[in-house]
Amino acid sequence: MNPDPDYSAAYLRVDLGVQGRGVQGRGVQDHGVQEQGVQRQGDHPAAPDGDLPSGHAFVFTIGRGNDIQLAAVASVAERLIGRPVRAVLDDLGGLWRELVHDSQLRWLGPEKGVMQMAIGAVVNAMWDLKAKLAGKPLWLLLSEMPSEALVDLVDFRYLTDVLTPEQALSRLRRWEDSRGERIEALRRNGYPAYTTTPGWLGYSDEKLARLCAEAVQQGFAQIKLKVGGNVADDRRRMAIAREVVGTEIRIATDANQRWETAEAIEWVRQLAEFDPVWIEEPTNPDDLLAHAEIARGVAPIRVATGEHMANRVMFKQFLQAGALQVAQIDATRVAGVNENLAMLLLAAQFDVPVCPHAGGVGLCEAVQHLSMFDYVAVSGTVDGRVIEYVDHLHEHFVTPVELRQGNYVAPLAPGAGTEMLPASLERYRWSGRG
Amino acid sequence: MNPDPDYSAAYLRVDLGVQGRGVQGRGVQDHGVQEQGVQRQGDHPAAPDGDLPSGHAFVFTIGRGNDIQLAAVASVAERLIGRPVRAVLDDLGGLWRELVHDSQLRWLGPEKGVMQMAIGAVVNAMWDLKAKLAGKPLWLLLSEMPSEALVDLVDFRYLTDVLTPEQALSRLRRWEDSRGERIEALRRNGYPAYTTTPGWLGYSDEKLARLCAEAVQQGFAQIKLKVGGNVADDRRRMAIAREVVGTEIRIATDANQRWETAEAIEWVRQLAEFDPVWIEEPTNPDDLLAHAEIARGVAPIRVATGEHMANRVMFKQFLQAGALQVAQIDATRVAGVNENLAMLLLAAQFDVPVCPHAGGVGLCEAVQHLSMFDYVAVSGTVDGRVIEYVDHLHEHFVTPVELRQGNYVAPLAPGAGTEMLPASLERYRWSGRG
Repeated sequence: MNPDPDYSAAYLRVDLGVQGRGVQGRGVQDHGVQEQGVQRQGDHPAAPDGDLPSGHAFVFTIGRGNDIQLAAVASVAERLIGRPVRAVLDDLGGLWRELVHDSQLRWLGPEKGVMQMAIGAVVNAMWDLKAKLAGKPLWLLLSEMPSEALVDLVDFRYLTDVLTPEQALSRLRRWEDSRGERIEALRRNGYPAYTTTPGWLGYSDEKLARLCAEAVQQGFAQIKLKVGGNVADDRRRMAIAREVVGTEIRIATDANQRWETAEAIEWVRQLAEFDPVWIEEPTNPDDLLAHAEIARGVAPIRVATGEHMANRVMFKQFLQAGALQVAQIDATRVAGVNENLAMLLLAAQFDVPVCPHAGGVGLCEAVQHLSMFDYVAVSGTVDGRVIEYVDHLHEHFVTPVELRQGNYVAPLAPGAGTEMLPASLERYRWSGRG
Repeated sequence: MNPDPDYSAAYLRVDLGVQGRGVQGRGVQDHGVQEQGVQRQGDHPAAPDGDLPSGHAFVFTIGRGNDIQLAAVASVAERLIGRPVRAVLDDLGGLWRELVHDSQLRWLGPEKGVMQMAIGAVVNAMWDLKAKLAGKPLWLLLSEMPSEALVDLVDFRYLTDVLTPEQALSRLRRWEDSRGERIEALRRNGYPAYTTTPGWLGYSDEKLARLCAEAVQQGFAQIKLKVGGNVADDRRRMAIAREVVGTEIRIATDANQRWETAEAIEWVRQLAEFDPVWIEEPTNPDDLLAHAEIARGVAPIRVATGEHMANRVMFKQFLQAGALQVAQIDATRVAGVNENLAMLLLAAQFDVPVCPHAGGVGLCEAVQHLSMFDYVAVSGTVDGRVIEYVDHLHEHFVTPVELRQGNYVAPLAPGAGTEMLPASLERYRWSGRG
């Protein structure tokens, strides 16, 4: 479904001005991982004031439309200009409600697509700023917040049929006393990752086999293969991968929305003998009833989805319908950390593991914080959980992710991981067409 | 949920240039029905070339974010510049697929919110142009197309589990021979309307009673009341309305997404004695499982929704789940005439009546064409069907709707009804902030 991505981002920086406030938005577009044909235009980004930290966030896009996304981010961010920053940072739940329930902006969704992602960038930039001011990585900042404060971050409107604030609080309290142990475990062991490197369509069988072997050598316990082009090809590639990685390494599959319902069931059954751990995005990402039917049709192979999940209300329904067994939250698709926190709580309520979507530009850097916080305070476990890892574009970030023996190393630097290097912002800045 | 609407529109005009091509987009914002405090800025709109018709369309918004919507419309429209217009108009199904399945733009949805509405404006402008060039109102243009050509307009991707192209063709053929009779009936009788005039919250009981009586005198067979503020108030207002209109006139109710699931069921049951014909938007418009539960809980009162329906895949699921019994399609929420045609076919497949959402700016003018076409070629009936009518802002349109004895008069002027008067575009043009 995504034949020609042109990896891009609508990028937001929130500066503390001389009065300790101010917002600035601008757009950065990275023309593909080859970094060729880059057109650089526009002014130099302004330097932040002195040593005050800035809040950074972005919406990952795949090319055309990045300018629309940027306009939406700027429009939402503008509302914060001139506000006392500390007051905003002390009530990020209130900020979320204000932005999401703005009735005029809400009309353009409600709670989906360009506007929801724009709100997400603004919310996430404030979280980055808050974490930097606290001198902590975001995952640790969240992991040290009182349970009551975490519940206050979530808007339970339209969720109460499956999750009330009281139920959420009760869940968080269950793990409160032992948070310290899991924080230490994260610092020691990191968080399990899986790699998509071997699995792109178009690789020769020899390259597939070689990359599978390398993934095992690098310590990954799971790999992922794209499927859905041709079932005979998929079977051959699955056979090669299974042969190389053995029976202990998990193989996930990803169809990128290619199928109709019946086709999905038929196709996945033909891959069953190679023991795929999940089938990802079998059909249209809004179609929870189709996902539920597919899940029934391909069990015990699990259905995974979430990178295009529009909001917490859709997520709730996928859980209610048994339409997903693996929840792939995304750091920049919904309205930021707060909405992802709601989704972590919902997933835990249904005992569904969260295995975030990553890759793109900076999604690995951002989403690792959510999984680590989930382990410390929400689900209390890493069993069956794994964060996607795609090995590209990390060099553009101030605090790039670090992998060690197939695990994300817990980041220690203050912030949400979402700040790009000034040189990258400058080099790939995009303000033209084409 | 919409306490302070500032009725607006992102407006698109597609001009045939001297080479018979060209696209121009610009924004118009109408600052409320009082038309006070209007700020007029910007250049005069350029006049179209000679006597060639232009295609006009818009996305209705309620204020902030209209500029974002306009940017999205312009971005999509730009892709048409320089194309041979006749070729585009001869394959509007192909245009729809091209725009909706553009993988880069699709990332910003997929198929929802700002981007889907932007595609809708472009598609609808082309339909307006096509109808003008054919010298026919849109409803008649569609009603005279061969069934095969209508099926070609629809993208059945992700719909085939409930509706295949063959099933759609079979349905359309059923009514083909008798289309002429219904075209004549429309010209003679028009299409039933209902009025929202009596039902706004905040009116005194006396005003409510007076407006209910006027609606009956004007010939409307249905009125609609807003509910959800306070159950005692709702009961009192329903009692007054029922007393005034008698038992033969239908009373619809509209909650504008106010409730949680259980709350909705409890509340609506307390209104049951006043025999409401439907409860509209009881909760979050994405929540088909909640709507289905509410529908089961309040039957035989029907659940109505659709003005925020993001796309045909969501609509399909609402039908599958029994989550709506009245389908309120909207002319500018989805990707234009083609997607609404898909929704008309789906509704007919599930035998659910289509009672369009209207009001706003120009929605009455636009959506009447879809209902009239539905009657002629898809459902073959007006039984249980009624188009919303809101009596404002019609004076800004070149071909304003005409009501006669509670019925929309079938429009005869060529086009889709979506062209605004140059003077209105000029007067309410908006290019600033605030």
